[in-house]
Amino acid sequence: MHIDILTLFPAMFDGVLNTSIMKRAQDMEAFSYQTVNFRDYTESKHLKVDDTPYGGGAGMVLSPQPIFDAVEHVQAQQQTNKQPRIILMCPQGEPHSQQKAEELAEEEHLIFLCGHYEGYDERIRTHLVTDELSIGDYVLTGGELGAMVVMDSVVRLLPGVLGNEASAPKDSFSTGLLEHPQYTKPRNYKGMEVPDVLLSGNHANIEKWRQQQSLKRTYERRPDLLANYPLTDEQKAWIKSLKNN
Amino acid sequence: MHIDILTLFPAMFDGVLNTSIMKRAQDMEAFSYQTVNFRDYTESKHLKVDDTPYGGGAGMVLSPQPIFDAVEHVQAQQQTNKQPRIILMCPQGEPHSQQKAEELAEEEHLIFLCGHYEGYDERIRTHLVTDELSIGDYVLTGGELGAMVVMDSVVRLLPGVLGNEASAPKDSFSTGLLEHPQYTKPRNYKGMEVPDVLLSGNHANIEKWRQQQSLKRTYERRPDLLANYPLTDEQKAWIKSLKNN
Repeated sequence: MHIDILTLFPAMFDGVLNTSIMKRAQDMEAFSYQTVNFRDYTESKHLKVDDTPYGGGAGMVLSPQPIFDAVEHVQAQQQTNKQPRIILMCPQGEPHSQQKAEELAEEEHLIFLCGHYEGYDERIRTHLVTDELSIGDYVLTGGELGAMVVMDSVVRLLPGVLGNEASAPKDSFSTGLLEHPQYTKPRNYKGMEVPDVLLSGNHANIEKWRQQQSLKRTYERRPDLLANYPLTDEQKAWIKSLKNN
Repeated sequence: MHIDILTLFPAMFDGVLNTSIMKRAQDMEAFSYQTVNFRDYTESKHLKVDDTPYGGGAGMVLSPQPIFDAVEHVQAQQQTNKQPRIILMCPQGEPHSQQKAEELAEEEHLIFLCGHYEGYDERIRTHLVTDELSIGDYVLTGGELGAMVVMDSVVRLLPGVLGNEASAPKDSFSTGLLEHPQYTKPRNYKGMEVPDVLLSGNHANIEKWRQQQSLKRTYERRPDLLANYPLTDEQKAWIKSLKNN
């Protein structure tokens, strides 16, 4: 997979993308990336990439020309017949999800467009991009962090990227429930103890405790996740007992 | 505001935090930050910070000792009587929101705990942290990007940080609706035109068009945001006409 990132702030990316798993994924050639400053593509004499909005109002709006031309350029660099996914990071986008990450992990070429506190000229949305994505319902100063978040969620799914220390299928949002509590040594840390069941050696009891804790945590913290979850009769009974306590 | 970030990967942060608005916010002393590698606090001879989970299973779990001690250390560095907010980035956390960002922007000292593909010993959650936060329902390789996202959403709200180029109150998620389309020059870009109404100079019509587009976009893309939105009778009529088309 190759990823191009169109941004006015290329320096934001290297620290995140050259560390830990993202670094290893590049070393093993699971993906490569390139940051492209779209200011380099403007035809404006003063190197402007934005302008005031038609119809008035506060704020600036990114002009179509530098972004259309930068996309055309990075698209031409790739020797593939498959069309790239051109992803606009913006608050108006589809909420990013694990399902979306899995979908994007099947692609060969992703292009991220990151604005920075400006709006985007609507013609970029309607005539250029294939996906508009938002990482959550909060306001950020730019699309750069969002692009890094989406990249991280996608790259870790590429074949071979995750080693034994992190196994994709058992993660939260893959099972549909929040993960149960975990404990490690020591048994007693400053008077705080590990639950007896985890020290019992009884694997059936441990598994049952974990399932119940997972369900309890999801019920208490994220009941929205249970709405579409296929609960067994036993799980329904557990939840009923939680409601009565 | 001072922010401490406990992480095994301090190098991930500088590129993001020393660019653009986050850089300016530090220059104007709106906030300062420090990354702390909690491996420096382990009492383990082999510099271990994690261990296998009690009860068995895949993956590693971050031990309580290095994290409790690192938090104690950074807490003692601050000359304030106010307790810090100690924020654990994790998939099981409360979904981050604009409201949460506004709440955190009132604090003097934030401490972020970032795990990296390990779980956390439950005693860290129950006896140390004040907040568990998740930036969205997707799996990331670590808590570092999440911490940067939360920091960005908080720091931009600190007094004086945003200049004229980005005005906080009119952003998406502050109004409760998605932003309307924006256009800038040229009027015609490769055959793609700006809507006539925006060129009309009739400000009442422009404002009405923008409100309708904002409502239309929210209705089409994020109907969940409308559930608690106080619609006027006129807005209800617009939505009804959208449904009939």
